[in-house]
Amino acid sequence: MGGFFTGRTLTGIGRDLRAGRESARGLVTRALESVDKDLNAFVTLDEEGAEAAARWADEELASGVDRGPLHGVPVAVKDIIDVAGLPTGMGSGHYAGHVAEADAACVTMLRNAGAVIVGKTGTQEFAFGGSGDVSVNGAVRNPRDRERMSGGSSSGSAVAVAAGMVPLAIGTDTGGSVRIPSAFCGIAGFKPPHGAIPAGGVFPLSRSLDHVGVLAATAADCRVAYHALTGPAEAVPSLLDGESGGGGRAGSTAYGRVAWIEPPACDPEVERRVRALFPDAPSERIDFAGLRQVFLAIEYSEAYDVHAERVAEAPGRYQPATLARLEEAGRMPGWRLVRALRERDRYAEEIAGLLDRYDLLAMPTMPIPAPRIGATEVGLGSLTALLVSLTSPWNVLGLPALSVPAGTVPVDGGGEMPVGAQLVTRRGAESLLFEAADHLGLGAR
Amino acid sequence: MGGFFTGRTLTGIGRDLRAGRESARGLVTRALESVDKDLNAFVTLDEEGAEAAARWADEELASGVDRGPLHGVPVAVKDIIDVAGLPTGMGSGHYAGHVAEADAACVTMLRNAGAVIVGKTGTQEFAFGGSGDVSVNGAVRNPRDRERMSGGSSSGSAVAVAAGMVPLAIGTDTGGSVRIPSAFCGIAGFKPPHGAIPAGGVFPLSRSLDHVGVLAATAADCRVAYHALTGPAEAVPSLLDGESGGGGRAGSTAYGRVAWIEPPACDPEVERRVRALFPDAPSERIDFAGLRQVFLAIEYSEAYDVHAERVAEAPGRYQPATLARLEEAGRMPGWRLVRALRERDRYAEEIAGLLDRYDLLAMPTMPIPAPRIGATEVGLGSLTALLVSLTSPWNVLGLPALSVPAGTVPVDGGGEMPVGAQLVTRRGAESLLFEAADHLGLGAR
Repeated sequence: MGGFFTGRTLTGIGRDLRAGRESARGLVTRALESVDKDLNAFVTLDEEGAEAAARWADEELASGVDRGPLHGVPVAVKDIIDVAGLPTGMGSGHYAGHVAEADAACVTMLRNAGAVIVGKTGTQEFAFGGSGDVSVNGAVRNPRDRERMSGGSSSGSAVAVAAGMVPLAIGTDTGGSVRIPSAFCGIAGFKPPHGAIPAGGVFPLSRSLDHVGVLAATAADCRVAYHALTGPAEAVPSLLDGESGGGGRAGSTAYGRVAWIEPPACDPEVERRVRALFPDAPSERIDFAGLRQVFLAIEYSEAYDVHAERVAEAPGRYQPATLARLEEAGRMPGWRLVRALRERDRYAEEIAGLLDRYDLLAMPTMPIPAPRIGATEVGLGSLTALLVSLTSPWNVLGLPALSVPAGTVPVDGGGEMPVGAQLVTRRGAESLLFEAADHLGLGAR
Repeated sequence: MGGFFTGRTLTGIGRDLRAGRESARGLVTRALESVDKDLNAFVTLDEEGAEAAARWADEELASGVDRGPLHGVPVAVKDIIDVAGLPTGMGSGHYAGHVAEADAACVTMLRNAGAVIVGKTGTQEFAFGGSGDVSVNGAVRNPRDRERMSGGSSSGSAVAVAAGMVPLAIGTDTGGSVRIPSAFCGIAGFKPPHGAIPAGGVFPLSRSLDHVGVLAATAADCRVAYHALTGPAEAVPSLLDGESGGGGRAGSTAYGRVAWIEPPACDPEVERRVRALFPDAPSERIDFAGLRQVFLAIEYSEAYDVHAERVAEAPGRYQPATLARLEEAGRMPGWRLVRALRERDRYAEEIAGLLDRYDLLAMPTMPIPAPRIGATEVGLGSLTALLVSLTSPWNVLGLPALSVPAGTVPVDGGGEMPVGAQLVTRRGAESLLFEAADHLGLGAR
């Protein structure tokens, strides 16, 4: 905790840059100085590239070229996303020494927005898992308690932000991989609607579930970054006026109608903490168990398609936990996938009905605070299943989902660990998520 | 052989009906008299319903209402297709006593066209297999040699036509199930492009591969029936003039440019017989082995989705051969399906390229003549694989495919059995198939 960027917002950084109180080169230096190697957030630092990009950003600003709120801002990129000339290691022995030839689409978007890429952040091996401690590079550590998991798979991206090394990082989210480490580390993470940020140049885990997302200290900074990358949000039909946000109706708030989605299995302290944010929201239930089956059938089938030859030819280059999960994935029957794709359509209709009645669905991001590194079971059951239990439905349905820090809960052995509140809405209405976070006082530090 | 309709065309029947030389009621009587129970083509005869429909057809014609070429024509319907008030038995112990409540979409189309449904024809159990001898109703027998397979799964539909019991029958084709028994029995069978005849009310085998098709003695009669059901064919851009059908180019004929597709494994007599029809067609190869993998991944995954609960709860109600194949289908991995769906797109592009250069692809329908009932292996290998080897690629790609009788070949133990020539073209260009059959002298008896 306590890197240079702790407590700073993108807006504040932008103001300082434009007022000449900071330079992009200075920010790169601060970012590099803030890197705490013990946390293992970065696998590659690109001092030279970052300095060149920062120099260019400074020159542009000086000459009146202003690329907007990410101009000159140091950004970290998850190590399954290609940055031309840098290694893309995938957290795996399979990609030792592999150097990317071209930028991923989202990296091109970052550069066009003037962002300065300082390095690549540690990922769960091939992004296949949410714990953050399975990688050829070793565990990424939680800045709040270094013996605890960072969460994953965008582990290093979350930790780099949480520890103030950078104000913004890019990650990917197939079942929760942006939101899980955001919640565990006490920052904000946003998974946009499917395809909103293109996935070209990102190593696939499960193509139809993969999303590129953003991680920042606050929801407000996630919004700034998201809009900087994708253009201004489309006008959301005045959901905050009249019928949608109006008074009297169940769950109506100043920021829209909110439903509380009951988590199927949740640490009571976590549930109490997040539920307290939405005291008047009526409870609704969704079929988490059924959605989980749909998620697994799609993720496993698509993931094994990507890895089949590697598993056959060089299984020993995987971390044992990754190999075991891939082997399980390879046994997912095709008929389960056929059924899952049909079920997905049915669930999409069902949730669309819920989102006709409510503007926002609220629930914890994670049913538990960050466990200790290496854990595979916790009181509530198998960690693998728990990690994505509340996040993966929104990948199946491709809906925008935001995790915001919602305080802390006491944990075994003393101390407190962060809790995340997750907000979900209709595709195209993602501005509502950020407005709600603002109203809840969760949008800023 | 030698039922009433042997040697009669739909056009001839229609002329006789309109000239008053025949009545629809008379045709129903002839059809019922022509049923040879030993062939096992029909599982249900609907004397009463057929007579009522025929009476109505006669009354309409007498009063000047003419529904076109199928008006008053006796038709047989495969027993996986619902006809309201009649049993739909699926050839399975699972559907004993099951009576359909409503007509399938294609049956509605038949009735709207004035056709008279005389009964339901025997099918391979749940249409899952091409031999025609696996059904709770026993083997359907080949009229040319009753010890030989009819082929399947539209076994009874092919035999009812081949033996002159009806001039037209409806079947379904997921991997060849219209064309296989048509070729084995010496009649014509047409699988339209995917979706051209709607599959509502047809028990699914593999939804994305299932096609409804027509079986008749000749290609000309298939064309009459197909157009009567789906409306007049769309204008085909003059493929028979100018560039497409013009002289000089490789494979050009009076009916378009033809490529000979080399069968991967084929009885030499069958290949010689069919190849002789296209002496100037250049040889082309397609990846039959790869297309077979795509076919199996899709068919198996989708079929087991349909049957999973039945296999779990009442496996003993299946024929043993069906159960064994379903169990194999249930083990098809999901990643193979993911890969197959991607490969299908690639093959579709590849074959579209071939169909830019040629108007028609010609090959045998079946690589072998009809084997003896009960056979599971023949000289060329496993029968299950051979039966769909040349037909199933056109289900994967959804392209129109016509099988026409192309003479006979000598078979072991003496005698001759029919051979089918298969023609494939672009979607929307199906008229070309019928024109080619005409030019080849294969369109009529």
